[in-house]
Amino acid sequence: MRFRRSVRWAAALLLGLAALAHARQQPPIGVPAPPLGDGPWVFDTAEQHRIRVSVVTKDLSHPWAIAFLPNGDMLITERDGRLRVVSGGVLDPEPIAGVPEVRTDGNGGLMDVALHPEFAENGLVYLTYTKPVGNGMGAPSLARGRLDGHALTGVRDLLVPDYYEGNSGLNGRVVFGSDGRVYMSTGGRSQNDVENVAQDPMSLRGKVLRLNDDGSVPADNPFVGRDGYRPEIYTLGHRNTLGLIVHPETGMIWQHENGPNGGDELNIIVAGGDYGWQSVSFGRHYTGSRVSEHPTAEAYESPIVVWLPAIAAAGMAVYTGDQFPEWRGNVFVGAMTEGRIPGTGHLQRVVFNERTEEVRRESMLRELRQRIREVRQGPDGLLYLLTDEDDGALLRIEPAP
Amino acid sequence: MRFRRSVRWAAALLLGLAALAHARQQPPIGVPAPPLGDGPWVFDTAEQHRIRVSVVTKDLSHPWAIAFLPNGDMLITERDGRLRVVSGGVLDPEPIAGVPEVRTDGNGGLMDVALHPEFAENGLVYLTYTKPVGNGMGAPSLARGRLDGHALTGVRDLLVPDYYEGNSGLNGRVVFGSDGRVYMSTGGRSQNDVENVAQDPMSLRGKVLRLNDDGSVPADNPFVGRDGYRPEIYTLGHRNTLGLIVHPETGMIWQHENGPNGGDELNIIVAGGDYGWQSVSFGRHYTGSRVSEHPTAEAYESPIVVWLPAIAAAGMAVYTGDQFPEWRGNVFVGAMTEGRIPGTGHLQRVVFNERTEEVRRESMLRELRQRIREVRQGPDGLLYLLTDEDDGALLRIEPAP
Repeated sequence: MRFRRSVRWAAALLLGLAALAHARQQPPIGVPAPPLGDGPWVFDTAEQHRIRVSVVTKDLSHPWAIAFLPNGDMLITERDGRLRVVSGGVLDPEPIAGVPEVRTDGNGGLMDVALHPEFAENGLVYLTYTKPVGNGMGAPSLARGRLDGHALTGVRDLLVPDYYEGNSGLNGRVVFGSDGRVYMSTGGRSQNDVENVAQDPMSLRGKVLRLNDDGSVPADNPFVGRDGYRPEIYTLGHRNTLGLIVHPETGMIWQHENGPNGGDELNIIVAGGDYGWQSVSFGRHYTGSRVSEHPTAEAYESPIVVWLPAIAAAGMAVYTGDQFPEWRGNVFVGAMTEGRIPGTGHLQRVVFNERTEEVRRESMLRELRQRIREVRQGPDGLLYLLTDEDDGALLRIEPAP
Repeated sequence: MRFRRSVRWAAALLLGLAALAHARQQPPIGVPAPPLGDGPWVFDTAEQHRIRVSVVTKDLSHPWAIAFLPNGDMLITERDGRLRVVSGGVLDPEPIAGVPEVRTDGNGGLMDVALHPEFAENGLVYLTYTKPVGNGMGAPSLARGRLDGHALTGVRDLLVPDYYEGNSGLNGRVVFGSDGRVYMSTGGRSQNDVENVAQDPMSLRGKVLRLNDDGSVPADNPFVGRDGYRPEIYTLGHRNTLGLIVHPETGMIWQHENGPNGGDELNIIVAGGDYGWQSVSFGRHYTGSRVSEHPTAEAYESPIVVWLPAIAAAGMAVYTGDQFPEWRGNVFVGAMTEGRIPGTGHLQRVVFNERTEEVRRESMLRELRQRIREVRQGPDGLLYLLTDEDDGALLRIEPAP
């Protein structure tokens, strides 16, 4: 009996290995996302029971970020270097001129866009982008320019880091804090996650940086004057930050970052904090081994939300509007792929109690199978999403009648 | 500017609180699961691209577990105390006689069913169930009887623990190890998770127990002869175990348990191991606070898979059949609700590498919105599921043409 069972197991194992070898000729892993239809779609969700999702435009190429202008228009970045305008719900076919040249291969390109707090007076727009530096390499940089009609003028770099990246770790978001400073994230994923660059205090990689609006270093940065630390650093130990916002109720900086295989995390950013990558993580390396034996440690800030499996988190908004009363205070996070399976993008909603502790989570819009790259609340109290696709869409979520 | 912003936040906060108060009169949280149709349904999944799911029967009431008889028939438990037979794909209207009386309120009742390794010779069937002990209380117990035609005969209790439970922690699974011993799980969730019963070595709660096939204690159990330990204990520190199987390739016991708000975990069971509940957990209490500051610690075995958010894991199978070559070695786990949102049940698939490290995960059958309570591989190499509903279904998954 036992012998027969071993034989059966050995046979199963051999068949398994054969299947594995065979699998290389199989269709790729994942569920092909069907082309996004024209919509609108009505979905039943857990608390705002009926919502309608409609397409504002599908004419975007890998859009990355949204900023709302005071007049209600939207600025939208496209990864291959265009800054677009949506006005009155219509995409302007003409991109804004004057955007700096970007490196567009790999996962770099034009990324985030943020407005100066006094944009209404000074017209200043801040952009994160991959600056080409030759040989296909890029430097994840911060530039600003003045929006003047349909062009950026006086564009100049505020930060060009002294390191270059290949195909990973190029991501950078930018947001103005409630203190008027510029917060910018830099990717901390080294090639194959081998070097622990995010922990290196002399590297700008894998950090949240804090700058004055002209790119200079504020004198009250946590590591100013400390030997062996770059003074721009505000926090350390981040992998790939794709969400960086000011929480509209507390004024704190909220950040999220992608884990590798599991361990995407949402953090509250505190000056001088170390968020652990890649000394500790809830995730696994792509090969399967744990990044760290224990996912947290005393020396590091612990995340307030963790995703296992990974969702490839991107974009973030805290809902404060009137259109969805049941969503007030909820955090929305885009998901590009879940569990490393292509075709599984969706939208996440996290509900917190009054002590900012998670009480439940909902995943929404799974039916659309889109890579959700960005989530913002509009001045109209509706939610706006971008899909990271070749024919990328701007979607609007509103209450369904 | 700053003042206006504070006012806006205060207003938002007040609106938020008002919304919270208002929410008590709103429809309940969750997406109502539509009645399961007649099927079949064809789904595209990530590796076995086209699968067909069909209904074998919908005439079950909260079915809990499946055991396959040597002749290919299935035994299925129903929570309110019936043991059913499916023969040739047809549910026998007559339940098997002789099942012990069970307590059916709360979440107790008739639960797992397992066959003796020499069932073909001795006909012995093992059942876990909630034995009524008066005042609505129940003892999560183990009984066995001989299957004789359409009745269990000679039924007797092998283990009736000396503690009783109210509405929680009643769950128990049972499986025969590759060593021929009986492994039985007991719930370790105390009322409101206040007492740390799972860590108490003099309590049978929150444990995996190891018994001889007649209910006596094996002399080689890890704590036999150790003062202050119940000798039945094989492992400690479990919350609610709803998956307990022998891994068909390694012969090891694999177990999974429900976390509270997050932190469902899959463990490999090793003699004498402590799996941490409720001293450490990846989960949060239902109020939102962390169960432990750090989710793991040296003294405790770490899970090999963690779910954040929780999926209310139930049932487990390792696929070894011929029907789905791309699924060989994958672990399937039922999900009853995700992220504490009703109407989000589905089926999970976890892929491991050759070192039993997770490399990716897929969630499937979300469209059906059923609480998946049980997953088993049939002798025909197909997967069989039970849905934990009033009109509970037995579902079969097969390759779609």
